[in-house]
Amino acid sequence: MNRYSLNQATTKYWPLEDVVGASAQAGLEWIGLWREPIQEYGVDKAAKLVADAGLKVSSLCRGGFFTATDPTERQAKIEDNRRAIDEAAALGTSVLVLVSGGLPAGSRDLDGARAMVRDGLAELAPYADERGVRLGIEALHPMFCSDRCVVSSLGGALDLAEQFPASQVGVIVDAYHLWWDADVYRQIERAGERILSYQVSDWVVPLPADTLLGRAMMGDGSIELRRLRAACDAAGYDGPIEVEIFNRQLWDAPGQEVFDLALARYQEHVI
Amino acid sequence: MNRYSLNQATTKYWPLEDVVGASAQAGLEWIGLWREPIQEYGVDKAAKLVADAGLKVSSLCRGGFFTATDPTERQAKIEDNRRAIDEAAALGTSVLVLVSGGLPAGSRDLDGARAMVRDGLAELAPYADERGVRLGIEALHPMFCSDRCVVSSLGGALDLAEQFPASQVGVIVDAYHLWWDADVYRQIERAGERILSYQVSDWVVPLPADTLLGRAMMGDGSIELRRLRAACDAAGYDGPIEVEIFNRQLWDAPGQEVFDLALARYQEHVI
Repeated sequence: MNRYSLNQATTKYWPLEDVVGASAQAGLEWIGLWREPIQEYGVDKAAKLVADAGLKVSSLCRGGFFTATDPTERQAKIEDNRRAIDEAAALGTSVLVLVSGGLPAGSRDLDGARAMVRDGLAELAPYADERGVRLGIEALHPMFCSDRCVVSSLGGALDLAEQFPASQVGVIVDAYHLWWDADVYRQIERAGERILSYQVSDWVVPLPADTLLGRAMMGDGSIELRRLRAACDAAGYDGPIEVEIFNRQLWDAPGQEVFDLALARYQEHVI
Repeated sequence: MNRYSLNQATTKYWPLEDVVGASAQAGLEWIGLWREPIQEYGVDKAAKLVADAGLKVSSLCRGGFFTATDPTERQAKIEDNRRAIDEAAALGTSVLVLVSGGLPAGSRDLDGARAMVRDGLAELAPYADERGVRLGIEALHPMFCSDRCVVSSLGGALDLAEQFPASQVGVIVDAYHLWWDADVYRQIERAGERILSYQVSDWVVPLPADTLLGRAMMGDGSIELRRLRAACDAAGYDGPIEVEIFNRQLWDAPGQEVFDLALARYQEHVI
């Protein structure tokens, strides 16, 4: 259990104090945090709560969204990402998860959008480095390419990350987004020390109307979670494994119930 | 216009005689056909109708669906694919489009499913070769990986195709399924003489409840259709370009209206 980390987004409506308490009581070492609820709770207060419970923060989600035609808007995002880096540092985590952003409105220029992501990383990486925070590029499933994330495969994420030192920019291996890729095991091997997190949930169909909420509990779908975990291990990753599920039914269920189920399913299907 | 081909599935409820008539009247050389309506119309009768109109068949859609746990079921699919090859030959087209099938029910074994596809191809390729038909592996968008097609990228399709002679097994480059891939231009170059068709439609969000019907008219979405076409050209492909759109609103519109719009959009966005 020493690698397990529940990302608080999995129990979105459970108060932070409850999910921290449950994690500590279960003897866990890690917890994954999300910017908006942490800002609401207070970053320093959250850092103290987590530390007092004997937990460490596996990652902070999330920054990014570098793609906009308007330079002022792009600059505002850079500022916001600097704040996210400061928050990550204050929370004592070395990993800030980044989602790149989709195509700018009305644009079809994928290469151009990906260049904006590279430029954003270049602006942020030294700032993050000074604060002991590494930037983790998360490829999202290709169905989110146009409107949310132009980085759609682990190979694409590595093409970006490798333009920076591994100590500054790495990648997030999220099983939900990457499992279908015939090339994913080769890319995990390529990623090596750049793997900053392994995140788990499961793939089920049909997709819900809001495709962002389509993730299922581990074991309910078709992803080879254990095989992907073993590949990350073999590539040298021995850090926390985050459960990150956005799912309306799970959000509506009692927090402790979801907490217990996720822990059981992790043991059954991941580790 | 000498490369343009309307796949009849784009105007699903328009009678075959109408879409053939409209294609001939527009001075086109090609038409794309779909198995089920052609079987219903009569294969030989359809072949005569098309030939009499001075048209050639760009491709027959579609065979495949090789993934099933039950060997009897797999064998039945092989038989059905042999019939599809016979139909393609009778219609005078050298291209049979194949969709691989998803994961077998209850399975998470992607490698195993992909091996079933390879085995199916191995059984069919010599039979097709004798009849002058090439098998075109179509990668579908990764959102269809679990339930419809375990081949989710052009690279994955080529990994399969390259186990056979290029004269027997090739790939279909469908813009809707492949546009998001950071590696797609490299893979198109790799595909070279194995490209058997370039198919166009467009990507829009949100996806409809039935994700199979999410394709949009060229120009309505975010795909660089002309760039992908130019890449296929550069790789040596000079065959027909098929418009293939599954979309409830287009199906409900008058056939001639959709026919005219598709032709105009092709000139504006593809060629």
